[in-house]
Amino acid sequence: MKPVLDYRVYLVTDTVYFNDANIWNKMDAALRGGVTLVQYRDKTQESRILYERALKMKALCDKYKVPMLVDDRADIAFAVGAAGVHVGQSDLPAEVARHMLGADAIIGVSAHNAEEALAAEAAGADYLGCGAVYPTGTKKDTSVIGVEGLKAIRAVTKLPFVGIGGVTLANYRDVLNVGADGAAIVSAILSADDIESTVQKFVQLSL
Amino acid sequence: MKPVLDYRVYLVTDTVYFNDANIWNKMDAALRGGVTLVQYRDKTQESRILYERALKMKALCDKYKVPMLVDDRADIAFAVGAAGVHVGQSDLPAEVARHMLGADAIIGVSAHNAEEALAAEAAGADYLGCGAVYPTGTKKDTSVIGVEGLKAIRAVTKLPFVGIGGVTLANYRDVLNVGADGAAIVSAILSADDIESTVQKFVQLSL
Repeated sequence: MKPVLDYRVYLVTDTVYFNDANIWNKMDAALRGGVTLVQYRDKTQESRILYERALKMKALCDKYKVPMLVDDRADIAFAVGAAGVHVGQSDLPAEVARHMLGADAIIGVSAHNAEEALAAEAAGADYLGCGAVYPTGTKKDTSVIGVEGLKAIRAVTKLPFVGIGGVTLANYRDVLNVGADGAAIVSAILSADDIESTVQKFVQLSL
Repeated sequence: MKPVLDYRVYLVTDTVYFNDANIWNKMDAALRGGVTLVQYRDKTQESRILYERALKMKALCDKYKVPMLVDDRADIAFAVGAAGVHVGQSDLPAEVARHMLGADAIIGVSAHNAEEALAAEAAGADYLGCGAVYPTGTKKDTSVIGVEGLKAIRAVTKLPFVGIGGVTLANYRDVLNVGADGAAIVSAILSADDIESTVQKFVQLSL
């Protein structure tokens, strides 16, 4: 059966954080703080390293009973038994990921506007990742759609969606207020001085 | 049912050749010349580009009824209906690729010595890619095992295997003479002035 995900505080990793040997303690702190969903995103490594890190990440998520998705790589998602995959516009088509992972897998799709949101819905996406909501240092090549962009997407689809890109404690409520089901967060969690309490604050704001 | 592959003249692509818009004509010439097997290897692109190129390559191979394997990426192999995947020591473990692609898929594994050959056999590999037999410009970080290295591998396994790395028309027979079932060839075919006749010469030498 397809799991029902809680998209409120959706932690996304990024390659740069894996240069820090402390990443696993940071992930543990984030999970302890209450992130509701994790995406393992790590773009630039050899497949064996991705597989080993994804396995380790999955074990950590399992410990906290938090579902994990994998960015881009349906093979890695399958290999570690992740709940599904998140595909961007330059990754495998959503239909292909669905065919590979099956009806019960969660397939998330990046959408930058209403047109891409509708196409993703037609392709069988379970949720959308929409942004960049705000300017972000993590993905420098992405255009900023603002909360107005999220509103336009909310107007055309009933699919769950999260805002992504530059979301912080200061603007998180604004993202929810335009109808997003949550936010995908990278730096505001993984670069925080106190990760656990930062996540707790996001969770508090989501209630 | 698992296909029986002909490993004699096994053409492997490499990322660098896709910078040349003429790659598709070159592949067509190689297939016309009689390559017996094709591996789509293309390491550095976004998944969508890999998928689109693999689809195109698969259609071309189908035209000549030549099986195609995909390097490293089991998801791309699955997505385009390739015969299987070739995994190196830094790619997904062979068992994981097998689990993903099923019993009828061809799983090839790179082996640099007898120990890795035996491990690959135990992991369920269908064939081995062994080398580098000779120095090669395509993979600069690989150590050279020579035909003596191939002999040592032949001595411990009955699995089909191909020599890879620096194989040319001048040394191809030496590779077969130590018991290899064929050779995986990159530059000696794709950089040839007359690709079709070069492949025909490899095929002649293999008889």
